[in-house]
Amino acid sequence: MTDEPRTRAQRKSDVLEKLSAKVADTWVATSDGDGPYLVPLTMAWFGDRIVLATAKDTPTARNIVARGRARLALGDTRDVVMIDATLERTVPVADAGDVGDAYVAQSDWDPRTAGDTYVFLILVPARIQAWREVNEIPERTLMRDGVWLV
Amino acid sequence: MTDEPRTRAQRKSDVLEKLSAKVADTWVATSDGDGPYLVPLTMAWFGDRIVLATAKDTPTARNIVARGRARLALGDTRDVVMIDATLERTVPVADAGDVGDAYVAQSDWDPRTAGDTYVFLILVPARIQAWREVNEIPERTLMRDGVWLV
Repeated sequence: MTDEPRTRAQRKSDVLEKLSAKVADTWVATSDGDGPYLVPLTMAWFGDRIVLATAKDTPTARNIVARGRARLALGDTRDVVMIDATLERTVPVADAGDVGDAYVAQSDWDPRTAGDTYVFLILVPARIQAWREVNEIPERTLMRDGVWLV
Repeated sequence: MTDEPRTRAQRKSDVLEKLSAKVADTWVATSDGDGPYLVPLTMAWFGDRIVLATAKDTPTARNIVARGRARLALGDTRDVVMIDATLERTVPVADAGDVGDAYVAQSDWDPRTAGDTYVFLILVPARIQAWREVNEIPERTLMRDGVWLV
């Protein structure tokens, strides 16, 4: 049985709920210019930015810093949010201020206690898509060039 | 509360169960040589190979054909199977024989009826890792260079 496709407004609401959820895990795909990398990370949503936390020598951090981009997925494979994002800035955990507070409030760990190799990666969403079934493919794009379409 | 780490033998068994599950969805990360791409696809496990099905003009198919690699994730973000795989061959859906039969038996759709732009991508796992919590990180590598370590 196929559900009716959600409206774009409903999808935006669902996307924001996933981004703001207490402990929001995301799949983070990056490229080193040759092959792909992919790993799950816990994110926070703060000031319309995606905040990731990882050691700066991980492939994910190195790829994002070097190439300025990531593609993220939230939700499961049948209730997908896909986000193409660009790096705005990198912040050492010791100097993270509000960003660090927001990350800790939303997640289930504190990167500020993980050592001085840890950084917050602050990403700006450029494109956001959301779909569940094939009937939601046509209107799946909710944000383009950083602007919500709904 | 943290569970005891699983043995490697248990993890291998869990991995094979996920790969063989009726309707096994996977996150497929690829690279176009510049940026990352990521999308969920339904896979099949046949002859120790991962079988994907997609139109040959999708970014995923183009990237895998051009660069010969993908990184896949099965499971959710707190029960992860990560697979680095290389392309063995591409088969048009019309000529897929046993591979096509196996894909259809395990999945919930039939790519052979999706049009002649569809292909099966047959991937060989090179490295497989599986973990749930931090205490499973140390022994997470279950296959290296295409050989099971357990």
